[in-house]
Amino acid sequence: MNLGDGENAYDALTAAGSDASHWAFGTGFSPALSGVDRSVPSDVDRDDLFAYCLMLGDDALILSQRLMGWCSRAPELEEDVALANIALDLLGQARLLLARAGDVEGAGRTEDDLAYLRHEHEFRNVRLVELDCGPGPGGDFAATIARLLVFSTWRLALLSRLVHSRDPVLSAIAAKGTKELAYHRDHAAQWTLRLGDGTAYSRERMRAGLARVWPLTEELCTPHAIESRLASIGVAVDPASLRSEVDDVLGTVLTEAGLDRPDVPMLATVGGAAGRHGVHTEAMGYLLAEMQHLARSMPGATW
Amino acid sequence: MNLGDGENAYDALTAAGSDASHWAFGTGFSPALSGVDRSVPSDVDRDDLFAYCLMLGDDALILSQRLMGWCSRAPELEEDVALANIALDLLGQARLLLARAGDVEGAGRTEDDLAYLRHEHEFRNVRLVELDCGPGPGGDFAATIARLLVFSTWRLALLSRLVHSRDPVLSAIAAKGTKELAYHRDHAAQWTLRLGDGTAYSRERMRAGLARVWPLTEELCTPHAIESRLASIGVAVDPASLRSEVDDVLGTVLTEAGLDRPDVPMLATVGGAAGRHGVHTEAMGYLLAEMQHLARSMPGATW
Repeated sequence: MNLGDGENAYDALTAAGSDASHWAFGTGFSPALSGVDRSVPSDVDRDDLFAYCLMLGDDALILSQRLMGWCSRAPELEEDVALANIALDLLGQARLLLARAGDVEGAGRTEDDLAYLRHEHEFRNVRLVELDCGPGPGGDFAATIARLLVFSTWRLALLSRLVHSRDPVLSAIAAKGTKELAYHRDHAAQWTLRLGDGTAYSRERMRAGLARVWPLTEELCTPHAIESRLASIGVAVDPASLRSEVDDVLGTVLTEAGLDRPDVPMLATVGGAAGRHGVHTEAMGYLLAEMQHLARSMPGATW
Repeated sequence: MNLGDGENAYDALTAAGSDASHWAFGTGFSPALSGVDRSVPSDVDRDDLFAYCLMLGDDALILSQRLMGWCSRAPELEEDVALANIALDLLGQARLLLARAGDVEGAGRTEDDLAYLRHEHEFRNVRLVELDCGPGPGGDFAATIARLLVFSTWRLALLSRLVHSRDPVLSAIAAKGTKELAYHRDHAAQWTLRLGDGTAYSRERMRAGLARVWPLTEELCTPHAIESRLASIGVAVDPASLRSEVDDVLGTVLTEAGLDRPDVPMLATVGGAAGRHGVHTEAMGYLLAEMQHLARSMPGATW
């Protein structure tokens, strides 16, 4: 591209006429849902839809935060870029879903308000995404891959059904997300094969990584009452309906990698409640403290 | 003690008549300096005194925060209690010094405001205390002990001179603190002997722990301009004057423990500036995020 007078490389990269599709979530920071039909179907309870958008948005936001931690610390440069891209894809999904949540709530809260100014018990993500498996001391790349494999297999199954949601925004977000998740799942599967079918040491690490995340997988396919209600009217997806696809895909990958399905007990819920109810593991508070510190330290700051 | 009608064990423990000296910083949370003569000598620059109180207060606050992390995770129950008590002693010193800082500043900031609502560059602690050596993944008990040995040796030397400060509050804080620091130094020295003169493995861990903290020790005896100014008028202690005592004590302990003084380069300063100037290591931001999260999440909350 030729740069004319007064132009520079940054302008050229971000010019309106350029193809912005290679950016994780578009260029600039305009409101995530601008230009999208944001009507809410008349029979949908707005509180339910608000909570459901938080559930799917928080899953993406918190896993994105975890994956960002690997930036500059992955085992090879190519993987560094791959994990960062996956994290940015998920951040883009989180932006759309939290913006939709704020929009549906109608109290004027933005995506930033919801990400940075909620308390721990107000986050509705599954506990799988908050697990701290590095990087840093105790960092565990195999567990990071194992989680990504399980999460992206499950979320791809979910979004591919959510495309048919009666909510126009959820449908649009799902349509965009399935393309991203297909790549994430493939990436995680490739690493699972490479480690599982590698050396004795890499196989053992991959086995241990799977065992570490497995106790948190039951929650993925356990419906919250809000999910059930919204699924019954064609807006949400009942996560219980994803179980067989998730089991099949993971079974195929593990068999191919020469790995057994972990035989470990599932993590207990607290009085039947877990992440979707705002009940989290110890790791969540530390994650939020780090993620929210700047926004809470400088309220309303812009840059 | 007999409990009369209407009394309970808690009342008895906290009764005004009981000996409260076994509590780390007294009972209740009344203002730390109530009842103390808080006049400022007329020739003392209040900005300097404010900054100096922050320096000594932040040292204690940040190391207290680090030591608190070991609570329930120390290698034995007795040590758990010991580290928690040391942390509480330091927290008590921090409360007094930050309260004095707020008082001298005259802008109405309380000890809590100064602890929870300052930004990283406004903290003036030496970088030694912010080093993250556990607990948790990568936790390092020997490095924790090594740091405590160096820090308490240095701070005891400092406070035992600060007793003669012309500032009545610094003098009083120092008088109380020397008793505490004498115990901290003894405790760390005992562990250094036990590990250094133990098995080959414990000696290697202690050697590595010392090597880990040693690069951060140069800063302790390097005066900031404010310290020099206040020392010249008999209010502060010039940290350079502590070097020979600190060297002698550490030399004695290391010799007794059969350990060599680490031969490692000192951590660089940034343009000559380090912790006393508000220039910190990467660990500091994470520490503050965790330490300040609750206060920043719930501004003005009380309980």
